[in-house]
Amino acid sequence: MIAPYCIQALTAELFADYGDVIEVHERNQILSINDGNTERHHHLAHLDPGPEGQIIVSIFRGKPRTLPFTMTMMERHPKASQAFIPLSNQPYLIAVCAADQPLKAENIQVFLAQGHQGINYNTGVWHHPLMALNQTCDFLVLDREGPGPNCDVVTLDVPLTIPAFTY
Amino acid sequence: MIAPYCIQALTAELFADYGDVIEVHERNQILSINDGNTERHHHLAHLDPGPEGQIIVSIFRGKPRTLPFTMTMMERHPKASQAFIPLSNQPYLIAVCAADQPLKAENIQVFLAQGHQGINYNTGVWHHPLMALNQTCDFLVLDREGPGPNCDVVTLDVPLTIPAFTY
Repeated sequence: MIAPYCIQALTAELFADYGDVIEVHERNQILSINDGNTERHHHLAHLDPGPEGQIIVSIFRGKPRTLPFTMTMMERHPKASQAFIPLSNQPYLIAVCAADQPLKAENIQVFLAQGHQGINYNTGVWHHPLMALNQTCDFLVLDREGPGPNCDVVTLDVPLTIPAFTY
Repeated sequence: MIAPYCIQALTAELFADYGDVIEVHERNQILSINDGNTERHHHLAHLDPGPEGQIIVSIFRGKPRTLPFTMTMMERHPKASQAFIPLSNQPYLIAVCAADQPLKAENIQVFLAQGHQGINYNTGVWHHPLMALNQTCDFLVLDREGPGPNCDVVTLDVPLTIPAFTY
């Protein structure tokens, strides 16, 4: 088993090859609306419903993973993007491999996201299923409904272990 | 000034004429996914991007309203739905009038939503802009980007006051 090279704190810059970080941030286009009552952080992700698809909204309720946690598989949605926005204000883990890279250990990046950070996987980006931490957590999910299969699952040649660490 | 007849606790049944309530609930279609790690509460709202539109994701950061609060206007989005999902786990207020009813005091309903309840306004439903409570609160917003105007604003003939109450 090989540990990921490092677990990085999630930032929009580091995640740019994989998708968007959905968060209140000064980099956003910020509009003052509702007579100054509200700041609109506008259009924070590239939602892609794919061919003949539509974006739907769901809630995922995920049990927490226990560290160390060994990843044995990853999945991708070849037709559309998929966004996760935490509703329980807890950190969570993300493991990704870019759509255009071979799914091998050295191409897998692991990020620690904070409870105020949502993410949107670009179409086709390999990722591990939801990895909540600390407690059962809810996430708003924006993904595709439409015709045809939209989930590829691959067993990793070499399992990858995320070690126990303080977060 | 006329007070609303009552402030009702938000439920999917009471809100059915105006849109969807987005929450973990036994009424949802619930799928077990990720090898039993995750419950998917599937497809919780009728997102409508409207003609030539797309659904986009934004965050609204709203200042809290102080009660009693007098509503002097309402707005509607004639081309598309608009969803608000609380990210700060605080209650908030909703005031609505169905799309097919005259915008008059007796047709306006006021709801208290809890911090785990999102809502989706059906296309054309009259509503008051964001009414956060207690503190500055963030909401994930799903609405339309597309050509043409998509916000009608009307001043109420008779202002409506939401009285101070315990929530």
